[in-house]
Amino acid sequence: MKKALVYITLKEGVLDPQGKTVQHSLDTLGYAGVKEVRVGKYLELLIEDEGAVEAQVEEMCEKLLANPVIENYTYTIEEVVTL
Amino acid sequence: MKKALVYITLKEGVLDPQGKTVQHSLDTLGYAGVKEVRVGKYLELLIEDEGAVEAQVEEMCEKLLANPVIENYTYTIEEVVTL
Repeated sequence: MKKALVYITLKEGVLDPQGKTVQHSLDTLGYAGVKEVRVGKYLELLIEDEGAVEAQVEEMCEKLLANPVIENYTYTIEEVVTL
Repeated sequence: MKKALVYITLKEGVLDPQGKTVQHSLDTLGYAGVKEVRVGKYLELLIEDEGAVEAQVEEMCEKLLANPVIENYTYTIEEVVTL
């Protein structure tokens, strides 16, 4: 078993209204030092290891998990140790 | 300036319908090896460094960014180098 950790963020220059809202809320709560907030996604995928897991994850990001037009993605893959 | 990277995940045992939907979609696309998907949030906060940034981020997570009843959060803080 492998675990893929996928991080998806909006590309620079793409407006992030959700981030703006969070920043505004933080400002209202008194955290005026917060100058920018960008909200992204974080996914954990548990994948049966039949080889080529990395290529699969890359493909899944391109096809479904991220929108490559406006989002960047990175991922790390770790071994799941079952005792 | 500091940049806080905040990772928010659902606690174990908390149902994740969004993750289930993603898993189902991946299955439909032919990725039958994906056994579980959990969807979380990833936030990047740009914070003016007036000291105690870590304590501030912790507080923001507790108060607004995460729901401590059903979510776990972790964060890392890095220095932003402006040239």
